[in-house]
Amino acid sequence: MKFCSECATPVVLMIPADDTRERHVCPNCGTIHYQNPKMVIGSIPAWEVDGEVQVLLCKRAIEPRYGYWTLPAGFMENNETTSQAAQRETEEEAGANIALHELFSILNVPHVHQVHLFYRATLLDLDYKAGTESLEVALFKEKDIPWEDIAFPTVSHTLRYFFEDLKQVQKGGHYQLHAHDIFKPMRPNDKN
Amino acid sequence: MKFCSECATPVVLMIPADDTRERHVCPNCGTIHYQNPKMVIGSIPAWEVDGEVQVLLCKRAIEPRYGYWTLPAGFMENNETTSQAAQRETEEEAGANIALHELFSILNVPHVHQVHLFYRATLLDLDYKAGTESLEVALFKEKDIPWEDIAFPTVSHTLRYFFEDLKQVQKGGHYQLHAHDIFKPMRPNDKN
Repeated sequence: MKFCSECATPVVLMIPADDTRERHVCPNCGTIHYQNPKMVIGSIPAWEVDGEVQVLLCKRAIEPRYGYWTLPAGFMENNETTSQAAQRETEEEAGANIALHELFSILNVPHVHQVHLFYRATLLDLDYKAGTESLEVALFKEKDIPWEDIAFPTVSHTLRYFFEDLKQVQKGGHYQLHAHDIFKPMRPNDKN
Repeated sequence: MKFCSECATPVVLMIPADDTRERHVCPNCGTIHYQNPKMVIGSIPAWEVDGEVQVLLCKRAIEPRYGYWTLPAGFMENNETTSQAAQRETEEEAGANIALHELFSILNVPHVHQVHLFYRATLLDLDYKAGTESLEVALFKEKDIPWEDIAFPTVSHTLRYFFEDLKQVQKGGHYQLHAHDIFKPMRPNDKN
């Protein structure tokens, strides 16, 4: 951020009164421009055939991680709930009709200022199709998941938690909420 | 937002290519200025005396809701995790030393573009004291909670869920994750 979005004056980095962190502050109109983490929200769309659960993945048609596989997910928008975001992203990226269930994983990625949430979901039919941000959409059994070609660690973790829980559920157990933090080692010139 | 924070040119509201929503876009440098929900994160600091659980509340010294009671909570910052945010806000607002436990509630407030998360916590000692954003900090038994003077609905909901679960826990049950959405009725001139 270089200029105040309210009055176009160049901003300065300073710690405002009663604050403990540097913010971009406008020396003209006094606006403090806070920057906060964003939420990335998606679903784990499941489909069962002959007692075996498959999960719907999308091959990314956009950067970052073009050509890698992901669960349908994206940035939460203003004026929607986390569930609505999960449902919308699943429709947009995978063209999929789902019944959305409970929150399944929450993953912090502090070095990119993101929190990722994934909801469990059940596919209602097989009428899915790639949206504009996906090259391809396909169902995968656990043994066929392209682990080496998963776009993001939050997705790999969520898929592993899901298939682990599924084995418990098949023995009469329950799905649980999984929380995990993904830290990047500090480097000398990391500014954030 | 009136001006581009990258080049100070007046922004225009338009739907970018491959998007479905209006964004503030810079006609000079092309930057799309996305606006996304913010996370408010706090804790439910509990302290048990003679088998009865009390919860630590803060009386707000700042607007909005000056003079009303809240659980310690505040905006999540960049470069921290949701747990770290809960711990930090509890220290800042209530000067409280806690052991942080699992995520207990997730509440959407879409009309103010916020998602509130509360973690269960145990007070480690009674050395709490009001931070700069609190007038007073005090422990409350369930029967003494000032329900009429709670600052935010997300806090009332979380406190009710907490004391309900506590009764289950005392009978051998478990705490659960609680999810709830708080909608404001649409008004004709609501722009967001």
